[in-house]
Amino acid sequence: METSKFSKFTAEFLGTLVLVLMGCGSAVIAGANGTTGVGLLGISFAFGLSVIAMAYAIGHISGCHINPAISIGMVVAGRMKITEALYYIVAQILGAIAGACILLHIASGKPEYSLAVNGLGQNGFDALSLQHYSLHAGFLAEIVLTFIFLLVIFGATSTKNINGGFAGLAIGLSLVLIHIVGIPVTGVSVNPARSIGPALIVGGEALSQLWLFIVAPVIGAILSAIVWRFVLERN
Amino acid sequence: METSKFSKFTAEFLGTLVLVLMGCGSAVIAGANGTTGVGLLGISFAFGLSVIAMAYAIGHISGCHINPAISIGMVVAGRMKITEALYYIVAQILGAIAGACILLHIASGKPEYSLAVNGLGQNGFDALSLQHYSLHAGFLAEIVLTFIFLLVIFGATSTKNINGGFAGLAIGLSLVLIHIVGIPVTGVSVNPARSIGPALIVGGEALSQLWLFIVAPVIGAILSAIVWRFVLERN
Amino acid sequence: METSKFSKFTAEFLGTLVLVLMGCGSAVIAGANGTTGVGLLGISFAFGLSVIAMAYAIGHISGCHINPAISIGMVVAGRMKITEALYYIVAQILGAIAGACILLHIASGKPEYSLAVNGLGQNGFDALSLQHYSLHAGFLAEIVLTFIFLLVIFGATSTKNINGGFAGLAIGLSLVLIHIVGIPVTGVSVNPARSIGPALIVGGEALSQLWLFIVAPVIGAILSAIVWRFVLERN
Amino acid sequence: METSKFSKFTAEFLGTLVLVLMGCGSAVIAGANGTTGVGLLGISFAFGLSVIAMAYAIGHISGCHINPAISIGMVVAGRMKITEALYYIVAQILGAIAGACILLHIASGKPEYSLAVNGLGQNGFDALSLQHYSLHAGFLAEIVLTFIFLLVIFGATSTKNINGGFAGLAIGLSLVLIHIVGIPVTGVSVNPARSIGPALIVGGEALSQLWLFIVAPVIGAILSAIVWRFVLERN
Repeated sequence: METSKFSKFTAEFLGTLVLVLMGCGSAVIAGANGTTGVGLLGISFAFGLSVIAMAYAIGHISGCHINPAISIGMVVAGRMKITEALYYIVAQILGAIAGACILLHIASGKPEYSLAVNGLGQNGFDALSLQHYSLHAGFLAEIVLTFIFLLVIFGATSTKNINGGFAGLAIGLSLVLIHIVGIPVTGVSVNPARSIGPALIVGGEALSQLWLFIVAPVIGAILSAIVWRFVLERN
Repeated sequence: METSKFSKFTAEFLGTLVLVLMGCGSAVIAGANGTTGVGLLGISFAFGLSVIAMAYAIGHISGCHINPAISIGMVVAGRMKITEALYYIVAQILGAIAGACILLHIASGKPEYSLAVNGLGQNGFDALSLQHYSLHAGFLAEIVLTFIFLLVIFGATSTKNINGGFAGLAIGLSLVLIHIVGIPVTGVSVNPARSIGPALIVGGEALSQLWLFIVAPVIGAILSAIVWRFVLERN
Repeated sequence: METSKFSKFTAEFLGTLVLVLMGCGSAVIAGANGTTGVGLLGISFAFGLSVIAMAYAIGHISGCHINPAISIGMVVAGRMKITEALYYIVAQILGAIAGACILLHIASGKPEYSLAVNGLGQNGFDALSLQHYSLHAGFLAEIVLTFIFLLVIFGATSTKNINGGFAGLAIGLSLVLIHIVGIPVTGVSVNPARSIGPALIVGGEALSQLWLFIVAPVIGAILSAIVWRFVLERN
Repeated sequence: METSKFSKFTAEFLGTLVLVLMGCGSAVIAGANGTTGVGLLGISFAFGLSVIAMAYAIGHISGCHINPAISIGMVVAGRMKITEALYYIVAQILGAIAGACILLHIASGKPEYSLAVNGLGQNGFDALSLQHYSLHAGFLAEIVLTFIFLLVIFGATSTKNINGGFAGLAIGLSLVLIHIVGIPVTGVSVNPARSIGPALIVGGEALSQLWLFIVAPVIGAILSAIVWRFVLERN
């Protein structure tokens, strides 16, 4: 294996590990109550700051996708080869599983949010949504939120954008934003790896709603890539 | 239609869509209570982070005004042609309507804040103000807050400012600030498109106070442009 | 009057106006309760984000001191002439008075925090401290917090610092930090203008503790300038 | 003593003083309750913003380690001489003691969190953990969180990273993140100096769990340096 490829693989693995451990960890360990815990706002910052931290840590190594929807979007936008994307996605899913494992070890015996699995507890749709949002609402929300997330990623990292150094901040803060709005709907995925890792570790019924958190983000990413490529940066 | 113009139009449309969907969405979906929801601070961050996200996503395409008061201010400050401003404003209002539509679809059946319309629920003046601020106070607040917002925009994007890359952060964070202070007064507009979109979708009595959220921000923007052009950057 | 000087004067006037209106306004209007208002964290962000907003709006015009302690510190550090500092300080105090006036007009009839005057309500020492901190503790806190604030200002704006563009962010975020820690002690001044403006407008007993919020920040600023000039940047 | 060395020593001393005074001070003075105080989220921001403030204040003087685990990690990563690291660590521990002393003077008589010592009150493991996390969980958490913290530091300050100016922001925000997740486990150290300073000032039983907050962060830092040097930046 070529060293450079191995570095990228390790970077994507560690980055996704950090996102899942810290993002989901904030919900599992620090709590959604704003008086005694960090609240929904704190959880939102945890997910977004994980991306900011990793963007400036490993961005120059792998681009810091740490999200299969981003890698797929980059392929559709014509910025990445499909073989490299597959390679990235394997690293991301393995990293998400590793992050969920570490969280399970630290938080063992405190399963308030069942590792913050999307599709379990209050992080799903219908009866599993914090505010009982329907399948329709959850599906639409995940598509739209991923569409917006990818829009920020394409724009902030565009070669036509002279403020490329700010991409890590802009992308991470947009993930804070997405969680501020979306947690009461589905708990927010916009990232299949973030949903797959904890769900596989918890298993059982945690897998029943998992499909939505794979399908909807991928649809949102593809739509965003198409709009970006053929409308916004067409000229 | 020229491609470049169409890209700008789409950028302003999508940017305003995101601002309304995510800003108003944070209030409608995630809630103003700081213990169980994201609180007033979370809503403030949602509006401001929407601007940061969009500034680095589409700033290099359209300048990311996503606010008619900004486009009008730019005309008065001599930085934009009036025909282009009108074109921008159409895109912004259409984007705001689209954002309110998507929010309605996601949050359907959960009208706690009636799409966070300015001039409805607790986002207006007199009886409709969270803390019963008067028409006089609300009008003054919207003028002053828009004046300050535009001051940051003119300064941060000035060609004399060598730190132009930070404009998106400074402008977005100033919108966080404006919401921290202003939500209890009028719910905060400082942006006619943000007020028009949700109000048109909700309709009826939601339109009765709408005039203030068009007139006051425009006055604030014009005053700010005059101070900027003839005092602060006169020399 | 020379144009350039007038622009600087206007910039310092407007900048301090914004700091007082928005910082104090967050406490008066949006409230210190974290469930129903923006909480102490929201107020802390309001003061700091005011500085970030103004730093990128008027920094290239006047340097954005908007604080007499900073102008005095700059004189002691050898970076500013004393005549220019006096000129700046007049603009800052007038701006603070104007900011307090506007806040009074908007919030009239809602004097929960008496314009957030330092030395009134819960923003002073002894019986007027939120947690009953003594004169000794309050005096020490204001000196130490101003010392730290000026340390960030000297370092972030040093000609030896290649990341000067980040100064506005670093300085503003350090003011967020200072308020997070210091509000329960004295309500935090670290800026004589921020204390003088609201106190003069409220008058009466609001003036009784004002001396501390002039003397202590100036001492802290002078000490910081000496340490900076003769130790940290001596070589 | 050579001037340059003395400047570095003073910078590390003052930087660690600020981190301990302001980070621990936020917990002691401003409180962990999100309704009446700044909450866990506010405390998390206090620690991280201390790093951001100091990074842009003294980063160009000493590199702003203000943490023995970082200096040790830099030695293992081959970026610092061991003699200089020892020199830094002395300054850091003395600064942490000084910061704890000042906090004791300001907050005297208000020992709600016993200077936020790690290993006392609710900032330790077993019975001393806010949510009764075990020694095993606390040890693992401190290793993993320090590992992540150092990963951000190595990456953000790498000579291969063209966005080096953002390092202070990325590193500080990653410390916010680490506290959001970790406070309910051990109160978070990831910095032996931050633990040693307050513990020495409080003394007695405050020293009983101190070993963990020295050993675990050092292990995490060494592991991170090895992964960085031999995997991520190997090629």
